[in-house]
Amino acid sequence: MLRGCFVGRFQPFHLGHRRVVESIADDVDELVVAIGSAGASHSVHDPFTGGERIEMVRAALADLDLPVYAVPVEDVDRHAVWVSHVESMTPAFDAVYANNPLVIRLFEEAGHEVRDVEMHDRDRLEGTRIREAMIEGGDWRPRVSDPVVSVIEDANGVDRLRQVSGTDANDDG
Amino acid sequence: MLRGCFVGRFQPFHLGHRRVVESIADDVDELVVAIGSAGASHSVHDPFTGGERIEMVRAALADLDLPVYAVPVEDVDRHAVWVSHVESMTPAFDAVYANNPLVIRLFEEAGHEVRDVEMHDRDRLEGTRIREAMIEGGDWRPRVSDPVVSVIEDANGVDRLRQVSGTDANDDG
Amino acid sequence: MLRGCFVGRFQPFHLGHRRVVESIADDVDELVVAIGSAGASHSVHDPFTGGERIEMVRAALADLDLPVYAVPVEDVDRHAVWVSHVESMTPAFDAVYANNPLVIRLFEEAGHEVRDVEMHDRDRLEGTRIREAMIEGGDWRPRVSDPVVSVIEDANGVDRLRQVSGTDANDDG
Amino acid sequence: MLRGCFVGRFQPFHLGHRRVVESIADDVDELVVAIGSAGASHSVHDPFTGGERIEMVRAALADLDLPVYAVPVEDVDRHAVWVSHVESMTPAFDAVYANNPLVIRLFEEAGHEVRDVEMHDRDRLEGTRIREAMIEGGDWRPRVSDPVVSVIEDANGVDRLRQVSGTDANDDG
Amino acid sequence: MLRGCFVGRFQPFHLGHRRVVESIADDVDELVVAIGSAGASHSVHDPFTGGERIEMVRAALADLDLPVYAVPVEDVDRHAVWVSHVESMTPAFDAVYANNPLVIRLFEEAGHEVRDVEMHDRDRLEGTRIREAMIEGGDWRPRVSDPVVSVIEDANGVDRLRQVSGTDANDDG
Amino acid sequence: MLRGCFVGRFQPFHLGHRRVVESIADDVDELVVAIGSAGASHSVHDPFTGGERIEMVRAALADLDLPVYAVPVEDVDRHAVWVSHVESMTPAFDAVYANNPLVIRLFEEAGHEVRDVEMHDRDRLEGTRIREAMIEGGDWRPRVSDPVVSVIEDANGVDRLRQVSGTDANDDG
Repeated sequence: MLRGCFVGRFQPFHLGHRRVVESIADDVDELVVAIGSAGASHSVHDPFTGGERIEMVRAALADLDLPVYAVPVEDVDRHAVWVSHVESMTPAFDAVYANNPLVIRLFEEAGHEVRDVEMHDRDRLEGTRIREAMIEGGDWRPRVSDPVVSVIEDANGVDRLRQVSGTDANDDG
Repeated sequence: MLRGCFVGRFQPFHLGHRRVVESIADDVDELVVAIGSAGASHSVHDPFTGGERIEMVRAALADLDLPVYAVPVEDVDRHAVWVSHVESMTPAFDAVYANNPLVIRLFEEAGHEVRDVEMHDRDRLEGTRIREAMIEGGDWRPRVSDPVVSVIEDANGVDRLRQVSGTDANDDG
Repeated sequence: MLRGCFVGRFQPFHLGHRRVVESIADDVDELVVAIGSAGASHSVHDPFTGGERIEMVRAALADLDLPVYAVPVEDVDRHAVWVSHVESMTPAFDAVYANNPLVIRLFEEAGHEVRDVEMHDRDRLEGTRIREAMIEGGDWRPRVSDPVVSVIEDANGVDRLRQVSGTDANDDG
Repeated sequence: MLRGCFVGRFQPFHLGHRRVVESIADDVDELVVAIGSAGASHSVHDPFTGGERIEMVRAALADLDLPVYAVPVEDVDRHAVWVSHVESMTPAFDAVYANNPLVIRLFEEAGHEVRDVEMHDRDRLEGTRIREAMIEGGDWRPRVSDPVVSVIEDANGVDRLRQVSGTDANDDG
Repeated sequence: MLRGCFVGRFQPFHLGHRRVVESIADDVDELVVAIGSAGASHSVHDPFTGGERIEMVRAALADLDLPVYAVPVEDVDRHAVWVSHVESMTPAFDAVYANNPLVIRLFEEAGHEVRDVEMHDRDRLEGTRIREAMIEGGDWRPRVSDPVVSVIEDANGVDRLRQVSGTDANDDG
Repeated sequence: MLRGCFVGRFQPFHLGHRRVVESIADDVDELVVAIGSAGASHSVHDPFTGGERIEMVRAALADLDLPVYAVPVEDVDRHAVWVSHVESMTPAFDAVYANNPLVIRLFEEAGHEVRDVEMHDRDRLEGTRIREAMIEGGDWRPRVSDPVVSVIEDANGVDRLRQVSGTDANDDG
């Protein structure tokens, strides 16, 4: 039995993430999806709560024949202890999948096997760009799975993101 | 679609918890199992990590025809904000299942519907007693599901619990 | 202009505290009432929130001809920095009034003038005893100011205290 | 009895804030002034301590016939729990007054009535600009109430702000 | 070059600790003394600050021909990440010396070599007993090195310990 | 006996710091080197752990005839309590040596004597520039003491810094 761990913030979980999981699925029997910065929400960088992102992950991957553990992981603000924090909050795993250089470094220093994930079509399938499309009324729906569209709409996620991105001359009181 | 939320520490997840879920299963379509004090581990009160308890919950309930979200929830040390913390870390839920008076009070003050759970056979099926049995070499295996026995043994859980419970005249330096 | 600082947890603010303030009122022009452990609530030791205790302090002292600043002070869990924490959260003060030995020690080590407060009638006017009376249906109302009774009743404070004090054989899951 | 809650950082509390309170005064019987980021101080963005800002609020509003609760509220770094944090630290309130989009969003998601406040004369009466005037030797005194000038000068606030804003080629060691 | 790490709270650093270091000195070239719960102070369990304990360690071991790193380590309240916290705050070490069962377990689970330390004469040389002797006016001086007596007396440590241990009928307000 | 305290982040401890210590050495009998932001590591701004920086400080100053206490000090994120935090974690000191304006201000407000340190040759001997040289393959070795080169190389510090500085189009998932 081989269990992988895919680490990301998933703001939101989009089709690029889905494709990564599809390619991982050939290598592993089970997959932990570790949802980083799980406590962050209601900001332009992190609009969705940890719970909303659990729903996205589960909904987006429900049709795959792969047992998935969607686990929220809060920040610890101490890079040197972050890996043992992740280990303590997730089922034990044999390999890490990530594309953030810091995440890769930290897991490698801790002795884990890390497999770089290849993200495709980054002009469209990248968190920052998808959030920008949400704010500016662009075409974000085709870039995430249909069930993820539902999760975001049930949470009034686009409204929320637009409102918190609102610049306001009165902002500093 | 009705989603329930069952709140506990699950140190360990035992047959009493399993029976509660069986009875909840008639009422709900999906169930969040919120694993409280998820960051606590390696103590007599909380021997198992959040990740080990996720494995227990998933393994113990795998045969039920009920979608289960096993979500670790770290402590916040502020009772007055704890409910919104749980809400932000879990998929949205319609009813809470709990038997701890503080948990019940906090969810009720926040306007949630709370359904008391009935725990049976408390002489045998109670966390404190099962951990005592582990420490003293008693009969703990029949009180948890078989897959939970495996999770605990893979983590050398009984050894760990015995060692951290070790009193030692040298303890305070 | 001389400003005093009276430090306590005020769970609840009772007639003993009121009498202390009456005696301080002769010495000072203004009084800071620093409400310690402001983030603690919903427990037998600390049933009321910081906000509820602000209301108690203000209501109980409204008839005095003394400007009062009721300031919630959250715990910092580091005794060695606690005094500078209090200083940063309150208007500057010239003398400290307290009866807890640790509080007195910490302010004295930091170079403050500390005046011991004399509490009277401790069989009746002591926080622990008043909370016990609330739990057991005893005679707590005559031990606090009338406006404090209103604050506690508006918050369903007695119900809350009784519920969180509820022992339950099912408590540990 | 209707109680409002006016939320801001108040670095410093200036005439624009004063005018907002004057306009709120017609609607409410009592006003909580929730001083956000109360633990921040000694920076260009947040020069004054929570305690100094309590003094400013009280001094600036002393002549109004409106009971005011000036309450410091420390940051929690979790937007999703921030509203319940504010609720627990303040007397209960019926309506929120704010002009920061994030604050408005968070209170609205939590079910509060939020009334947008109109800030006037933003070229002069805006926190950032007033702090810039302090640093650069500009004309900041006429933009705050006279008693607030005293609070700032008693704390050597302008010196402090200038010093912490000091860029220094040796800054990084 | 072999570096050891001796872990304890050292409240205070006494002759039992000194003897342990003497015996370790044969095995190692350098020694890290990791001062646990470094942020705790001003309590009966932890009277001395981290800084005072650094002074004790350095003073007590100055005559040994062994390079010593006295490093304060603050608590993290998460057993599962504590070892990587210690590792990040100390020079790298090859072996751990400890006698607390939890400390031993945590380092062993993290893959460290742990050598149990033998503490002698525990009736006299044990932290709790020495602190009791300080409180009750007993004979504590002969149980610590002479330079440690000086550190404690310079800090008015015995006064502090007695005062914070003071029970007071007025303690709870 | 006069003890100084030299405060910095020391990312890394370079020849500019060494020269400052040489000049301080004439004034003091002992020196505390307070290593700020000790918990930060694995970032471009703070690549080295607190423990690695202890090793640098000790190695770089070993040949001086000056007793040095290298003490890691974690951040507290509250400027107003930071000085008492430093005081509690270090041996007592008589004078502070620093060149960061905020550090100087905070110690002065707390009543400490602060002596400005003069840093020389800032084009070469400045933390930011040395870290840039590490990232870009520049000439960093001659800017730190030889024993510090060894500490950095033993920790694979340059590799780490380059990797965490890696920008990556896939960075945001």
